[in-house]
Amino acid sequence: MKSTSNGTDPPWETLSSEKIYENPWYGLRQDLVRTHTGKQITYTYMEHPGAVAVVPVTPDGKIVLIKSYRYTVKDWCWEIPMGGRDHADLEVVARKELQEEIGGICRKIEYINYFYANNGVSDIRCDVFLAREVEIGANEPEEAELIEIEVLIKDEVYRMAYAGEITDGMSALSLFLCEKHL
Amino acid sequence: MKSTSNGTDPPWETLSSEKIYENPWYGLRQDLVRTHTGKQITYTYMEHPGAVAVVPVTPDGKIVLIKSYRYTVKDWCWEIPMGGRDHADLEVVARKELQEEIGGICRKIEYINYFYANNGVSDIRCDVFLAREVEIGANEPEEAELIEIEVLIKDEVYRMAYAGEITDGMSALSLFLCEKHL
Repeated sequence: MKSTSNGTDPPWETLSSEKIYENPWYGLRQDLVRTHTGKQITYTYMEHPGAVAVVPVTPDGKIVLIKSYRYTVKDWCWEIPMGGRDHADLEVVARKELQEEIGGICRKIEYINYFYANNGVSDIRCDVFLAREVEIGANEPEEAELIEIEVLIKDEVYRMAYAGEITDGMSALSLFLCEKHL
Repeated sequence: MKSTSNGTDPPWETLSSEKIYENPWYGLRQDLVRTHTGKQITYTYMEHPGAVAVVPVTPDGKIVLIKSYRYTVKDWCWEIPMGGRDHADLEVVARKELQEEIGGICRKIEYINYFYANNGVSDIRCDVFLAREVEIGANEPEEAELIEIEVLIKDEVYRMAYAGEITDGMSALSLFLCEKHL
C-alpha cells in the first residue's frame, strides 16, 4: 500500500460518508475511513465551501484593514475583506467582498495563492487576492457584521502582523503571502 | 449602546446557548444572539479547546517540518508539530506534541503569540511556541496521523512559506510569527 507523500493513490479510503449537520454556511460530514494502517476510523469534519480573502492596497500604497467584532471569540480582530465562496469564480467573490466590506473598487486584482485554514477539523480553503489601486467608499456590511475601516501605511500593517496583533489568522497569513508582491 | 471597538461592553448579547453536537475533539454550539443592531440571530460555531503549535529549531539552526496527509482536504501538507489543547498548561502540550510528532526534546522553549484560526465559524485559538536546540528522535504519531519528517535550512523554509508552499495555514502563520525571533 502506498502511504508516502510520493505515492499517487490516496493513502486513506472512504468507506462511507454522511452529512450529519448543515446550515447555510457550512456542514458537518462524518466518514468511515480505512487509514494507511488498515484500521477503520470515524472522521468528522466541517465541510465548508471555502473563503476568499483580499488584501486591499490604495493608489498611494496604503493597506485597508478592518476591525471586526467576532462573536465566536468574543473579541475584536484586525482583518482584511473576506467572505465565503458563494460563486464559482473566485475573483467575483473577491470583488464582491471588497465592495461590501470597504466599499472598495479596484482596477487591478491578482490571484496570489491559497491555504487550508484549519485542516485537522475542516476542509476550508482560503484563496488570497491582492487588489491594487483600491478606491474605498461607503460599505454595505451584512447584518451580522460589525466592522470599522482603517487605512494604514504598509510598514505599520506588517509591524502589526509580525508582532501578532492581527489576531485573525486567515487575514494575517493572507498579508504575509502578499508581502513580497508589494 | 456601545458598538465600537473602543466600547468596554461586548456589543452582542447571548440570549441562550446550546451544544448541538459533540465528539472527543470539538463540538458545535448554537446560540441565540442579540446583535448591535438589536436584531436576534442564531449563530452556530465550532467550539474547540484550542491548538498548540511549535516551530522546532535544531542546534545548528535548521527547522524541522512535517509532511502530513490530511484527510479533510485529501492532500499532503507541510506542517509543524501541532495538537489539540488537552492540558491547561500550554507548554506541556507543546512539549508533548514535539515528542510525539518528531521525537523532539528541546532545552529552550518560548511562547511567541496566538491567533484565531477561523474566527467566522470557530472559536479555535492557536498558541505558538518556538523550541530551540531541538534534538529529534523516534516519533510516536497517533493512529490517525500519517507523517514524514524533514529537516530543512531556515532560508528554504521561509522561501516555501512566502511562496505559499506550506499550505497548512496554521503552520505557515506560526512560522511567520517566529521569523523575527530566529
